[in-house]
Amino acid sequence: MANNGSWEEFFASHLPPTDFEDNRSLLKEFCERHALQGNKIVLVTSGGTTVPLEHNTVRFVDNFSAGTRGSASAEYFLEHGYAVIFMHRQKSLEPFTRLFSGQKLLDMLDIQERGPNTTITVKPDSVDVLAPILVRYKAAHAAGAILYVSFTTVSDYFWLLRAACECLANLGPRALLYLAAAVSDFYIPKDKVPTHKMQSESGAPVIQLHLVPKMLAPLVNLWVPAAYVVSFKLETDESLLVPKAKAALEKYKHKVVVANLLQTRHNRVVLVTKNATQEIALNRGDILSGADIEMAIVAAIVSSHEEHMGGAAPAPAR
Amino acid sequence: MANNGSWEEFFASHLPPTDFEDNRSLLKEFCERHALQGNKIVLVTSGGTTVPLEHNTVRFVDNFSAGTRGSASAEYFLEHGYAVIFMHRQKSLEPFTRLFSGQKLLDMLDIQERGPNTTITVKPDSVDVLAPILVRYKAAHAAGAILYVSFTTVSDYFWLLRAACECLANLGPRALLYLAAAVSDFYIPKDKVPTHKMQSESGAPVIQLHLVPKMLAPLVNLWVPAAYVVSFKLETDESLLVPKAKAALEKYKHKVVVANLLQTRHNRVVLVTKNATQEIALNRGDILSGADIEMAIVAAIVSSHEEHMGGAAPAPAR
Repeated sequence: MANNGSWEEFFASHLPPTDFEDNRSLLKEFCERHALQGNKIVLVTSGGTTVPLEHNTVRFVDNFSAGTRGSASAEYFLEHGYAVIFMHRQKSLEPFTRLFSGQKLLDMLDIQERGPNTTITVKPDSVDVLAPILVRYKAAHAAGAILYVSFTTVSDYFWLLRAACECLANLGPRALLYLAAAVSDFYIPKDKVPTHKMQSESGAPVIQLHLVPKMLAPLVNLWVPAAYVVSFKLETDESLLVPKAKAALEKYKHKVVVANLLQTRHNRVVLVTKNATQEIALNRGDILSGADIEMAIVAAIVSSHEEHMGGAAPAPAR
Repeated sequence: MANNGSWEEFFASHLPPTDFEDNRSLLKEFCERHALQGNKIVLVTSGGTTVPLEHNTVRFVDNFSAGTRGSASAEYFLEHGYAVIFMHRQKSLEPFTRLFSGQKLLDMLDIQERGPNTTITVKPDSVDVLAPILVRYKAAHAAGAILYVSFTTVSDYFWLLRAACECLANLGPRALLYLAAAVSDFYIPKDKVPTHKMQSESGAPVIQLHLVPKMLAPLVNLWVPAAYVVSFKLETDESLLVPKAKAALEKYKHKVVVANLLQTRHNRVVLVTKNATQEIALNRGDILSGADIEMAIVAAIVSSHEEHMGGAAPAPAR
């Protein structure tokens, strides 16, 4: 059985992603601007991370996550007046566009072919659906209220996460971390990853996975000690749901675990804090009307973040 | 080292996907209609397959493929008059929409807010880009010339592939199979997959992979013996490229291997047949103008498919 190394070793042995410095500048500018404006900032992480099985990556281990929860939540945080860093798996669902696949959008369009005066319009019956989303999308972008950064591998994710924390630390308790990404627990150390594609002629390989260090520990204790940190736990076994959430809070000392079962995650979650558990569930009417549970999760988290800010030390002088 | 089982064993031990009967009906209707109209049909497979590591799937092994080659090729086959079965990994790139992410499409839109008379139009400078694609998209859909079916796991893929072959067999040499999907070579047999999410507390797991049976063998020999079959080989090591393609043709007796290197796959491929190798490459000008190599690959395949049909037995009487 392989041990997990320390988080320091992980950063020492994995190079930052190629676009790291660009993203770090974007994060810095975004956090400084919103800190000056007195805004709250939420970091929403979303989608799954990959673990490459080869250096020239043809195969990888992936974590199941379309990005549904993170992308929907980001929209609701914007509505609550937060500036949003949306740190997501490349090609996973994004706020606003999450409800429209490419084909759905093309099907909404009518073309009036008139040579150089050709026009394309959205069909009247689709305007009702699209207009409110488009208005909110344009408002968020015009206000510079959302920053998109993306990752693919678990190593990319950790580099970006730490860089975001470095910028968010200055916001003290006004920073909220909403860590909804599905992060690999396991990885293959760089020196054990083959350079070329594994050849099936040499038989089926055995993959020895290693444990990923738990980044929540340095994050809570060192990187953003004053922030309000929310983590997520996805399980498939109901009996482990709350006990594992409690154990995580005990171990990492953060504020909330949003616990959910793979099978029912779109309809029910349990918010677990040190002293309480609160179930949030959609009823049949909600489900039939197409409501999503993220609206209620975000409302609950925003409200407990308010309490955290009220009771905490004031934000650093600006 | 684990052996690969036979393809019969694979089907006997993996249940069909839940929407299998619906897809089989769609495939049957599509092939019968186009056979009656005397059309050629191409089956384009696209995107990567997954191998679940748990029954309640949280983690899986994935094959790298965005679906770029398959989705672009499908468009060119439509232009050459083929009916297209586009069998793709769920959420991978699709013909027509492949060039427009959701955000890109939203950014093309202007909204004129007038309450109940609100309209949304495509910005004039985006009309030039979007109009020709939208026209081709609408024409293909109006003509019923494209059928979309999707898979996620390698087992879904094989069930759909065999079902498509059963319908395509009736087209004889007029059927073209363009197998561009990145199919797993390895999998974990159903009885070795744990039911619940692997717990990191129990240490890092060792994953013993098994070889997937080579479906190309029964496909060429039994399922569609008269069809024109094109397979793809992605390698990372140049020295293996042509030898492995030749070996595959020798072994499976199909018509063409499109061989490409991961690093240069968007600019260069080698078409390997029993008696010849033909390199197709984009030059600097092509690359700068944003041309894609799939146009040339499809043109070459269409032309050799014509020869195959000319020299082959006539299509079954209709």
